[in-house]
Amino acid sequence: MIRRPLLLASALLAALGLSGCKEEAATSQAAATTAAAGSPAAENFQWKMVTAWPKNYPGLGTSAERLAERVKTMSNGRLTIKVYAGGELVPPLEVFDAVSRGTAELGHGAAYYWKGKVPAAQFFTAVPFGLSTPEMNAWLSKGGGQALWEEAYAPHGVKPLAVGNTGMQMGGWYNKEINSLDDLKGLKIRMPGLGGEVLSKLGATTVNLPGGEVFTALQTNAIDATDWVSPYNDLAFGLHKAAKFYYYPGWQEPQAVLELLINQKAFDSLPADLQAILTEATRAANQDMLDDYVYNNALALDQLKQQGTLLKRFPDEVLAAMQHESTVVLGELAGQNELNGRIWASMQAFQAQASLMHQLSEKELYNWR
Amino acid sequence: MIRRPLLLASALLAALGLSGCKEEAATSQAAATTAAAGSPAAENFQWKMVTAWPKNYPGLGTSAERLAERVKTMSNGRLTIKVYAGGELVPPLEVFDAVSRGTAELGHGAAYYWKGKVPAAQFFTAVPFGLSTPEMNAWLSKGGGQALWEEAYAPHGVKPLAVGNTGMQMGGWYNKEINSLDDLKGLKIRMPGLGGEVLSKLGATTVNLPGGEVFTALQTNAIDATDWVSPYNDLAFGLHKAAKFYYYPGWQEPQAVLELLINQKAFDSLPADLQAILTEATRAANQDMLDDYVYNNALALDQLKQQGTLLKRFPDEVLAAMQHESTVVLGELAGQNELNGRIWASMQAFQAQASLMHQLSEKELYNWR
Repeated sequence: MIRRPLLLASALLAALGLSGCKEEAATSQAAATTAAAGSPAAENFQWKMVTAWPKNYPGLGTSAERLAERVKTMSNGRLTIKVYAGGELVPPLEVFDAVSRGTAELGHGAAYYWKGKVPAAQFFTAVPFGLSTPEMNAWLSKGGGQALWEEAYAPHGVKPLAVGNTGMQMGGWYNKEINSLDDLKGLKIRMPGLGGEVLSKLGATTVNLPGGEVFTALQTNAIDATDWVSPYNDLAFGLHKAAKFYYYPGWQEPQAVLELLINQKAFDSLPADLQAILTEATRAANQDMLDDYVYNNALALDQLKQQGTLLKRFPDEVLAAMQHESTVVLGELAGQNELNGRIWASMQAFQAQASLMHQLSEKELYNWR
Repeated sequence: MIRRPLLLASALLAALGLSGCKEEAATSQAAATTAAAGSPAAENFQWKMVTAWPKNYPGLGTSAERLAERVKTMSNGRLTIKVYAGGELVPPLEVFDAVSRGTAELGHGAAYYWKGKVPAAQFFTAVPFGLSTPEMNAWLSKGGGQALWEEAYAPHGVKPLAVGNTGMQMGGWYNKEINSLDDLKGLKIRMPGLGGEVLSKLGATTVNLPGGEVFTALQTNAIDATDWVSPYNDLAFGLHKAAKFYYYPGWQEPQAVLELLINQKAFDSLPADLQAILTEATRAANQDMLDDYVYNNALALDQLKQQGTLLKRFPDEVLAAMQHESTVVLGELAGQNELNGRIWASMQAFQAQASLMHQLSEKELYNWR
């Protein structure tokens, strides 16, 4: 789950007295200035990017900053992007709205944050027991996923692009062992989103806490468990100091797409070369963030083990029940409207088709090691 | 194995009467023309890219063409790249040399093709039982792999970048069942490279055939087996019509990096914005090619099954022996010189570190399905 960082952002910024967002008078279009020479190629764009992350949040905030730097270099300064941490210009959960109304031309977040506005958005970050990282990327770019995502956001004048992926996450931090389904009953766990809905159906009490309160709640047994992201972020956040068991697999997020939101009118106002630069830099950032997580997860997991974290696997009985309830929760989401139904049908069809190749390849490779 | 397409290219081009390469008088530097305006930003570059692939070869040749188109759009025509199929300007196996001497500014191939010139190159495409796709990308971009790759090519004035990946491949096409180690003895198989060396140590007779002859050799039992790539390419090549069994896993190539070669002096002559455009477009192409393979492998594997292809898994005894001999072969390669030793040590260390995270995540996900 990467849902907490935005709450963490709020918490951190509140602590710093910055929670009152200094939203600027909306400049609803691309701020375009034309250089003296007056040729179309000389037109410059100064854009804003609002993000859902604390300043320089590892993996997520840092990736947004790198994207801005690269676009500046590639465009020789013709498209500059000022990156705002969550809460600096708008609160983390208002990133989508800010891009929709043109307060900022770009947003950096995750689709499931906007589920209140676009129910379909929940399909475009992570689906419990769903597509893996390579499958999700392939479905988006080659299997029709991108067009469905654009269709979902088009009424809001927003164009989405995949700008990163955390890879598969972990199951979460627990102070209580999960040996059977009974152990989920009454479990106090902080897990929002589809995963939280699944656990609620299995009898857990899911609670929502600002990120800044999670550590203390876990340490004082106010909650029994929480999910977060994966070793790279979890080690930095210190969760191993508040919980004994680190559970796997991360059934609730077998991958997680990070999202670039682009104000459609602002995008349309760019010349073709700058549109291509932004699009390709975003694709490159998608690869780069995954590399960052794969590399740093490896290092961080080593460190967690050295510091005494105990790795635990959910029992088969528990995973089977989670998978069953996931199907129910996703079926309910798919039934909410026609577009949700089409998206879920497309994802399921591709998962059914793509699964065999991974059974014959990566599954064998990892089993063999 | 993607080693054959280049031989296929030769075969195809020979058939078309094009095997006499029309190598042009070498223009050893970037062909740069300065526009009338005379400002540095107006300088235009017309580059050549020689490839190891037949024209529009699925996944590989098509990716090279797309990269050229994107760079043209991103640079607003300031950097144009003319793509040559294998044999059009230089033969497929001479791509590295052509880029090294500046006949072409760019090359598109795979590192292990140049093992005669740079022994270390073999580490940078695929290693039997080695890194998986996300691990290889992470090792290259975050774990020191890129610097080692550049060190290996620097004496030749060539800069390498990962420009794509096929993902994990298949084990190959067999007309003989492999039920024990004894079945490998005397097996006539077309498999070049490190995988071929491993099978030779296990008693197989490895043969090298031009791509254009593989189908007939398999159909007439001149050979018992061949490896190729994965369903996407193998279906298009018709191998299912010449062999009964499609073996997995593709132990010999758990991933395979495709490579962009850049003439270092030509790269240095580019302004910073065009350098960044080329670099980022290459990174985006890396992601795009993997998406292409993941998507099309899923579709092609479905079709192969419908057409009667029988999927077979190598027995554990056979895989264990292959893994043991792979360690021997790689140890020999690592012992050839100091640089090889450092590269292998770095890869092995990262694989040891990264493996646990995949055991806890993707392995569990794919096992659970």
